[in-house]
Amino acid sequence: MTVNRAWRLRRRPQGTAAAGDLDLVEEELGELADGQALVKTKLLSLDPTNRIWMSDIRGYMPPVPIDAVMRGIGIGEVVESRRDDMPVGATVSGFLGWQEYCLADDAQLLAPLTVLPDPLPGPESAFLGALGHTGVTAYVGIDLAGVAEGDTVVISAACGAVGSVAGQIAKQRGARAVGIAGGPEKCEHAVSALGYDACVDHRASDWRAQLDAATPDGIDVDFENVGGPIMDHVLGRLNIGARVSLCGMIAEYNTYNEGGEHAGGLTNIGQLIMQRATIRGFLVLDHGDRFPEAMAYLGGLLGEGKLHYDETIRDGGIEAVPTVLNELFEGANLGKLLVRVSD
Amino acid sequence: MTVNRAWRLRRRPQGTAAAGDLDLVEEELGELADGQALVKTKLLSLDPTNRIWMSDIRGYMPPVPIDAVMRGIGIGEVVESRRDDMPVGATVSGFLGWQEYCLADDAQLLAPLTVLPDPLPGPESAFLGALGHTGVTAYVGIDLAGVAEGDTVVISAACGAVGSVAGQIAKQRGARAVGIAGGPEKCEHAVSALGYDACVDHRASDWRAQLDAATPDGIDVDFENVGGPIMDHVLGRLNIGARVSLCGMIAEYNTYNEGGEHAGGLTNIGQLIMQRATIRGFLVLDHGDRFPEAMAYLGGLLGEGKLHYDETIRDGGIEAVPTVLNELFEGANLGKLLVRVSD
Repeated sequence: MTVNRAWRLRRRPQGTAAAGDLDLVEEELGELADGQALVKTKLLSLDPTNRIWMSDIRGYMPPVPIDAVMRGIGIGEVVESRRDDMPVGATVSGFLGWQEYCLADDAQLLAPLTVLPDPLPGPESAFLGALGHTGVTAYVGIDLAGVAEGDTVVISAACGAVGSVAGQIAKQRGARAVGIAGGPEKCEHAVSALGYDACVDHRASDWRAQLDAATPDGIDVDFENVGGPIMDHVLGRLNIGARVSLCGMIAEYNTYNEGGEHAGGLTNIGQLIMQRATIRGFLVLDHGDRFPEAMAYLGGLLGEGKLHYDETIRDGGIEAVPTVLNELFEGANLGKLLVRVSD
Repeated sequence: MTVNRAWRLRRRPQGTAAAGDLDLVEEELGELADGQALVKTKLLSLDPTNRIWMSDIRGYMPPVPIDAVMRGIGIGEVVESRRDDMPVGATVSGFLGWQEYCLADDAQLLAPLTVLPDPLPGPESAFLGALGHTGVTAYVGIDLAGVAEGDTVVISAACGAVGSVAGQIAKQRGARAVGIAGGPEKCEHAVSALGYDACVDHRASDWRAQLDAATPDGIDVDFENVGGPIMDHVLGRLNIGARVSLCGMIAEYNTYNEGGEHAGGLTNIGQLIMQRATIRGFLVLDHGDRFPEAMAYLGGLLGEGKLHYDETIRDGGIEAVPTVLNELFEGANLGKLLVRVSD
């Protein structure tokens, strides 16, 4: 009998997810039925959107129901199987949930798990990052904005899982890439390792002046991951015909479920008229048809040594997951943030 | 010797344009030089964007310089001419300025005046409204949003010069058109005369509930003329793939030039991600190539009796112009707001 440990959502967080919002419970798993496979979680991906899923705002997926296992994306190995498409030993990725074992089942899962190629053409963890959903998100967002040679592209959360890849794709397309990141170390890394032309430290008191100086010709594209006052300032520097790929607004996710309290809205939306500019919200989930193309492109860059890939893998097993999630909101991670659940 | 009376901008308004911001001055006009024509202003168009032009925000045109004649769109008659393309007696429209006479001159004008057909295929005033820049704005904004049969389209400032035409085009395309207007009389007019399926009174305390009830299937398109809390609430009801044609944000123009003070920003921009929605700012000036098509379409509707056209023409001559401008911000007008400067 396998014992599973799973984080169940007990209540919707007010602000940062805290003790009592989720419980780690031990549960015995029964025998597999036909059509089921048992997947042992190896790595879980921490994504800002996890916090959205905990809330009951009008999101792009139903909220995680109270008392359900917390939704999460991960990579695991099939350890028992009664389905032909998931043989024992296969590596799979998808919505495994915040748990040590996932009972993969057409009815229970939000979306089918993906069986990854064997042998894997890259490190396992990359399939949750640069070659996984965050890398493809970067690819799609840059492409939707039509980034072209000579454009000035600003990318917030420049060293994050999505931003770091977006910056490098923008450079490949011949754009000037200007990052925004928290702290001098990240900014230095953005320029030296990720190839940004400049990076603005949003923790510095003069970040607005830094951003102005780094974008002397204005901003043609904003790959927006953060929102809040930084995005507002960026909107004020858009050029005519500018495009904003709106990927995330991590600055406000911890306000979700606070009964409408909001840190402060965007005041520069009027600049969209003046500059005939566009904000386009997108979700990588809508672009499933582009995964093969994006993964081939990113895999190619990686193989040629043209894609620098950072990851922060935390140990501590399943117990650590909610605590590690909060690192995203503190900016404690560099690149893709993962938890190692099992070897 | 012709004496001209012209409103010159003396300082940038704080809030509503007020006494002292503009001066009405009398100025003698000299003899015409070659290439000049003298146009006598008949009607001036009052548009929310006039207030933008008075400010020094990062606008889509240079601010009106201090001490210059205030920029404005109007219709006039050529009364003297030393240019072949503007014969005496011709009716012209364009940037005449807030003055009784405009010296039309390639160098002085922001854009060439348009000589209208003779005889005019409709009432003169319509060429500043439903068959002029505001009608074409409505046409372009509805078209850019790809309004299609079955869409729910929300239109703020529903009885204004732009909104009233946009609502009727949306209905022609088979959409459900929901207006937002100030006061029960306008709302009644929106439904009975303009053909909106419903109209929400934003002055009623329950306007949010009214809007929710009027859009039971959510909102596919927002033709946005107002901004502020109304737009924010609309953003919260967007459907997947929704499009916002961002035409104007009149709710905030009177805050321009107040040193960054702002009534309150938009807090629901994150819904653009959840709903994979787009906000597109646009200016009719960029779509000059579509004027013939739009005017033919609108003229056709008018001829068939399918375009209800409201206008509010104030008398009082050139003296009245700044006062009448403020009516736009109070919502005192129905449809196109004009001042009769001369017969």
